[in-house]
Amino acid sequence: MSLTVWTNHELRPGACALFAEGLAAVGCRLIQSAKSTRHILAQGEPDPTLGEADIAYGQPDPDDVMKHPRLKWIAISTAGYTRYDRTDFRKAMRARGTVVTNASAVFATPCAEHLLAMMLSLGRQLPKYVLNQAGPRGWPYLEDRYAMTLLTGQTVVILGYGAIGKRLAELLAPFRGRVIAMRRSPRGDEGVETVTNENAAAALAVADHVVNVLPDSPAARGWCHAARFAQMKRGARFYNVGRGTSVNQSDLIAALQSGQIGGAYLDALDPGPLPPEHPLWTAPNCHIVPHLGGGQREQDEALVRHFLENLRRFRAGDAMVDRIF
Amino acid sequence: MSLTVWTNHELRPGACALFAEGLAAVGCRLIQSAKSTRHILAQGEPDPTLGEADIAYGQPDPDDVMKHPRLKWIAISTAGYTRYDRTDFRKAMRARGTVVTNASAVFATPCAEHLLAMMLSLGRQLPKYVLNQAGPRGWPYLEDRYAMTLLTGQTVVILGYGAIGKRLAELLAPFRGRVIAMRRSPRGDEGVETVTNENAAAALAVADHVVNVLPDSPAARGWCHAARFAQMKRGARFYNVGRGTSVNQSDLIAALQSGQIGGAYLDALDPGPLPPEHPLWTAPNCHIVPHLGGGQREQDEALVRHFLENLRRFRAGDAMVDRIF
Repeated sequence: MSLTVWTNHELRPGACALFAEGLAAVGCRLIQSAKSTRHILAQGEPDPTLGEADIAYGQPDPDDVMKHPRLKWIAISTAGYTRYDRTDFRKAMRARGTVVTNASAVFATPCAEHLLAMMLSLGRQLPKYVLNQAGPRGWPYLEDRYAMTLLTGQTVVILGYGAIGKRLAELLAPFRGRVIAMRRSPRGDEGVETVTNENAAAALAVADHVVNVLPDSPAARGWCHAARFAQMKRGARFYNVGRGTSVNQSDLIAALQSGQIGGAYLDALDPGPLPPEHPLWTAPNCHIVPHLGGGQREQDEALVRHFLENLRRFRAGDAMVDRIF
Repeated sequence: MSLTVWTNHELRPGACALFAEGLAAVGCRLIQSAKSTRHILAQGEPDPTLGEADIAYGQPDPDDVMKHPRLKWIAISTAGYTRYDRTDFRKAMRARGTVVTNASAVFATPCAEHLLAMMLSLGRQLPKYVLNQAGPRGWPYLEDRYAMTLLTGQTVVILGYGAIGKRLAELLAPFRGRVIAMRRSPRGDEGVETVTNENAAAALAVADHVVNVLPDSPAARGWCHAARFAQMKRGARFYNVGRGTSVNQSDLIAALQSGQIGGAYLDALDPGPLPPEHPLWTAPNCHIVPHLGGGQREQDEALVRHFLENLRRFRAGDAMVDRIF
């Protein structure tokens, strides 16, 4: 079966070669859209060449995809898939038997390591000493040793439990604490204690750390708001590698100012880029990273390997990795 | 058996009460030395009241200890015990059957978490974004995602493998990489691959991360010098929570300048405090924390619990925790 693969993802050179070779090896034809972009989150533009393809890889325009019934597999190159998460799109894909996958498996480990880095950095107050080194170069050895906190034995609540949360739970296992996953519909294979939206409050009340991995979906938008922050234990720490829209950022600032939230480390902001004058930059104990959670040196190679493995499965009729619908 | 416990460690109030209650509960008398100090690493001064005690807790002067044969247990309140690690002192303690313990178990988890925090912070480049937040508040989202590195799958060499190294190896397990311990005399219970001083070069050559937990001992002094840095893989990262004296810091600066060492995160410096004009503060990709590796909010309570558990064992004639000789 000779297949045509269309992409609008502009891969870096090494990964691009890997992609082309992988396709050539199984006799697939490649169409690189003229409207490709390196920006992994950018929405793709409609492209007439999509109509010639059996498979679309990257961020194809969903309306464009719906117009081209030849497409049998849509491989989204990100973990988030908000723009495809529409009833009409899901329905259309189901009706014509088109498989849709995302790339969660590629981003799970970088995001989980990013989260653990942020959690441990707050515990050991590393940001303070970065500024100390750039500034006075003091040595608050005696004063600060009692300010350090341990992650060992602590309780972590993960909001939005998918591939990232699962990997984080693995990394947290040797800390011998309690991990509670909040998931819309628990499946029973979480491997940790689970709660749903309905009983989230009780979980928030015992959390030392609240980790937000919620997507940008109607149900998740603004989920972390004043009442949620108030449900948390005083001084709890808050992290975000999900989407900025799931947090009411004004409420978070107020919670940081009152000390209700003891510290925050945020990788996902709304808007992103966060404008330099935004008050989150100067909120107390609030640390901001410019949305790098999923990044890694070998990102594009990992994306290509993920796609090629799924291509093998697609051709063989096997179950696909990261199938979302 | 009514015992007298002498201490020159000035515990914080909550822990002090815990200590006094714990001793009173088993009928022990407490002598708090008039020359007590809060500085956990400071050498204690000679104190005539030491002669009235059966047990010394804290940092008693070793020569003073040798003068008082009544002492049957010396409980050192730190993990490092350089000032007691002398042939004459060991011999004297052995001759009179005096047990010597340290407090490794108390510092293992904080130090291991501190190390993992430093390792992940370098991987996710967190120091850079702390400075970004304090400065331009840029959003180098596209440029920097490919600069992030993963700890998953990497090789970590731990120099000086005791309680801290063991705990670090536990925390590293879910990263599914290779952990190699360098130990003067492997005992076979390390649970990870081990090398000795003699075959360290081969281990250094494959390490992505070299973690130094070496003490301030004659054998360890200056162990990490130019030739060792040259044996490492180009771009390897270097961490120190051991003692600053085990590193030739001029050689480390040269290795950072040449790029042979890709990044360093140092918690133990020589001297400590490191003077503000010291060139390590401005060496490339070098991050400095003012010796807080072992710190934690509950440090003194943890020290007291550790002591009281050992007191129970001492009175019962059971094997002691963290016995060093």
